[in-house]
Amino acid sequence: MNEPALDRTPEALLQRLTGIVGERHVLTAAADLGAYCNDWRGRYHGQALCVVRPGTTAEVVALVAACAQAGAAMVPQGGNTGLVGGGVPCSAESLAQHQPQVLISLQRLRNIREIDTANHTITVDAGCTLQQVQEAAAEAGLLFPLAIASQGTATIGGNLSTNAGGVQVLRYGNMRELTLGLEVVLADGRVWDGLRGLRKDNTGYDLKQLFIGAEGTLGLITAAVLKLHPRPQAQLTAWLALPDPQTAVALLGRLRQHFGECVSAFEIINRAALELVLKHIPGTHSPLPVVHDWQLLLQLDAASAAEGISLADALSELLAAEQAAGRLLDAVLAQSATQAAALWKLRESISEAQKKEGFSIKHDVSVPISRIAEFIARADAQLTRNYPGVRIACFGHLGDGNLHYNLSRPLAEDNRAFIAATAEVNRLVHDLVHELGGSISAEHGLGQLKREEILRYKSPLEIELMRSIKAALDPQGLMNPGKLLSLHETTNNPLQLPDQLL
Amino acid sequence: MNEPALDRTPEALLQRLTGIVGERHVLTAAADLGAYCNDWRGRYHGQALCVVRPGTTAEVVALVAACAQAGAAMVPQGGNTGLVGGGVPCSAESLAQHQPQVLISLQRLRNIREIDTANHTITVDAGCTLQQVQEAAAEAGLLFPLAIASQGTATIGGNLSTNAGGVQVLRYGNMRELTLGLEVVLADGRVWDGLRGLRKDNTGYDLKQLFIGAEGTLGLITAAVLKLHPRPQAQLTAWLALPDPQTAVALLGRLRQHFGECVSAFEIINRAALELVLKHIPGTHSPLPVVHDWQLLLQLDAASAAEGISLADALSELLAAEQAAGRLLDAVLAQSATQAAALWKLRESISEAQKKEGFSIKHDVSVPISRIAEFIARADAQLTRNYPGVRIACFGHLGDGNLHYNLSRPLAEDNRAFIAATAEVNRLVHDLVHELGGSISAEHGLGQLKREEILRYKSPLEIELMRSIKAALDPQGLMNPGKLLSLHETTNNPLQLPDQLL
Repeated sequence: MNEPALDRTPEALLQRLTGIVGERHVLTAAADLGAYCNDWRGRYHGQALCVVRPGTTAEVVALVAACAQAGAAMVPQGGNTGLVGGGVPCSAESLAQHQPQVLISLQRLRNIREIDTANHTITVDAGCTLQQVQEAAAEAGLLFPLAIASQGTATIGGNLSTNAGGVQVLRYGNMRELTLGLEVVLADGRVWDGLRGLRKDNTGYDLKQLFIGAEGTLGLITAAVLKLHPRPQAQLTAWLALPDPQTAVALLGRLRQHFGECVSAFEIINRAALELVLKHIPGTHSPLPVVHDWQLLLQLDAASAAEGISLADALSELLAAEQAAGRLLDAVLAQSATQAAALWKLRESISEAQKKEGFSIKHDVSVPISRIAEFIARADAQLTRNYPGVRIACFGHLGDGNLHYNLSRPLAEDNRAFIAATAEVNRLVHDLVHELGGSISAEHGLGQLKREEILRYKSPLEIELMRSIKAALDPQGLMNPGKLLSLHETTNNPLQLPDQLL
Repeated sequence: MNEPALDRTPEALLQRLTGIVGERHVLTAAADLGAYCNDWRGRYHGQALCVVRPGTTAEVVALVAACAQAGAAMVPQGGNTGLVGGGVPCSAESLAQHQPQVLISLQRLRNIREIDTANHTITVDAGCTLQQVQEAAAEAGLLFPLAIASQGTATIGGNLSTNAGGVQVLRYGNMRELTLGLEVVLADGRVWDGLRGLRKDNTGYDLKQLFIGAEGTLGLITAAVLKLHPRPQAQLTAWLALPDPQTAVALLGRLRQHFGECVSAFEIINRAALELVLKHIPGTHSPLPVVHDWQLLLQLDAASAAEGISLADALSELLAAEQAAGRLLDAVLAQSATQAAALWKLRESISEAQKKEGFSIKHDVSVPISRIAEFIARADAQLTRNYPGVRIACFGHLGDGNLHYNLSRPLAEDNRAFIAATAEVNRLVHDLVHELGGSISAEHGLGQLKREEILRYKSPLEIELMRSIKAALDPQGLMNPGKLLSLHETTNNPLQLPDQLL
């Protein structure tokens, strides 16, 4: 008996999807799609056949299988807080095959499945917000250390897919280092159950590593086992003024030598970045009598209150010696949690202040920490030479070699001319980063924003290896097409023997 | 003009290999091959066409390309200290295609390429011994924290390929967490240059993760960029006697709560393990007046001498409270480096003592830390019921959930009967580990030893995914065949849509 051929029309697919999650969880009205198909910064505007909102892993499985059978592309989305257009559909015309795109929102998968305090692990659905996980850990007396500005909205699935970083990477690592296990729905709708909570497991290829940071292009993460840490009982927060970035790098080395892993944040903020905050964010003021060229926000975590007191003494002593040696211009230690929060607010308001100032050209780059000072000096020099009056807000996670290096137009110039220079500015900054052994996307990913730009900096062999992995796990090319990998190359390019090897 | 067809005979390959590294670095005499083709424990005896000893990455490239063109298998080898037969050739009859196997020894690639103290990184050739890297880091005032018993011989390439663990994973992580970048010669002889020293880099799939822990089956690692850490300035070492494993797990939680990441080692040792050491290792004696059922070797690292003093006070106080509560039977703190070394010697001599006692059935397992006590109780009970008089040496890295659970024959029984029970004992232990969500190879890898056993515990889907990755990166199946992946399945099994998805 012959089975009837599968109806591959969009209408038939919509009907199947509705059969899986119910009518109220399949959105098709333009008014409903907007919040999902446009990114929150308003830069990317994609088209989706529909948005589906599964409530269980089983529903995700059925949805993915239905899309796979229909040859429809799938766009996984968490909190839609991404910065590179990785979580929204591509514009219809950009996809070569004009595939229909089904946006799968994970926001209804938000159970904390288990907390195992003795194992220091938490098992969570991918749609849990980062903040929800932080709070669940705190209730259990433990710490989930990932911390980013969007944590109230950003989901664990998105954090995993972008290998999120944030302000405490120096001590605790990126999302990758905080992950022990994953549950992933593969491109064909089968489930890989890798939800293990083991610190040591050497039984073959570590598959979870593939899906972390893959921006949803290899499979759809539905749950994770994450590491928890002891909760620090005391924190020291200090605001320092330094003569230059080189001195800041040297100070970081001395701090790590004295305090080891207690150094949990080491954020650099230049004059322009601080001045934007003081100008645009109500209620902020400089922690020191004057704004300096370079400020640092330093945090030390102590396991106990007693250790906190001895750390404070040792830090004061070290800073006094730095000041005596001329390597520290001024410093203030927060005397209360309120004061510490005020210092952190200065750091965390930079993006908002820059947005209020107007258009800016942003970079999320990293270089080896030993090249940070050289990067800043050379980039500053080239940019101010090429664009006289350009204002450079340079800030970020110096302790990880990660800078947000953002440019605002010269005051004398209009936005249009500056916007037109974007590609040229990016080229200059990214070429320099590359020359110094760095990365043009330290923590935001490639998404749509940098999927072509990266071709300039990665070797063709590395791109080929990435495509081989993609072809192995998603042979139909259905998972989040147009993200991370360029649209302008073939999608299946197995390793070939080079022509002349010997 | 037609090129002459490639001569694919072994003789022609030997000639090409000799042309690359010179005659003295191609070994073919049986007397020369023994040290490479047999593992150090004498359990695996493989056959190789030859051993080649390249001196540079360029030579590795040429060798791999020549082997690939000839269709010869390649077996990368470091210090030949592995425990699962992963670094020696298979027996000729075990390989289906009776491929010639070329053993590529990396021992001549042993340059420390660079130390970047500001970036806290070291770049090394794969053939450097672990100890060489530890010493180079120490000379620069920093710490490379991986530490295993075989570090004087084991190489970085082997540590990477097995994702080595050891005694300080609790604080610093496995080899994977200590690695920032790799240089890898792929199966076809091309070089992937991923020698980056960045803490944050999110520009596509993190390819290095594939090669770490792959036991040489996906490519040949020739160099790595490794993370360095600040050097602890003080260490506290203590030997504790506890009533049972459950109490030890609870103590670990309290220690981490009080001392955070300062807890760098937490090793459990049962009565049988300690008694073997005291019996066989000259000059050892029990640190406490009597041997208890369960002892712990605890180490705390302090960033500074001052912190060391305050840690010592806090630890004494905590231990006094534990003792008062009946959770600690006895304890001794090392008062000098010599005393600390004597305590560590007890831990590190267990394997040697067990070897002197005779044949043993060994397991390298992990479970979630919260299941450790249950695992020990149930495994002990089942084994003593099934094998009355069996002696169980249970010891290992409790802080990582990783136990070495080794059995010696009942004294009344002869070796033969016990050896015959090996498969049955393994089944019992591994089934229980699996039931508790654990791993049958925590830190030694699969190699030849467990490549078939793992099929019982991993889902067919996970095996299929592993094979897809293997096929994508090594389509000819030339890299270290017969290791990690079973010989009894097809080598190319791309993802297929399941028959009935909906």
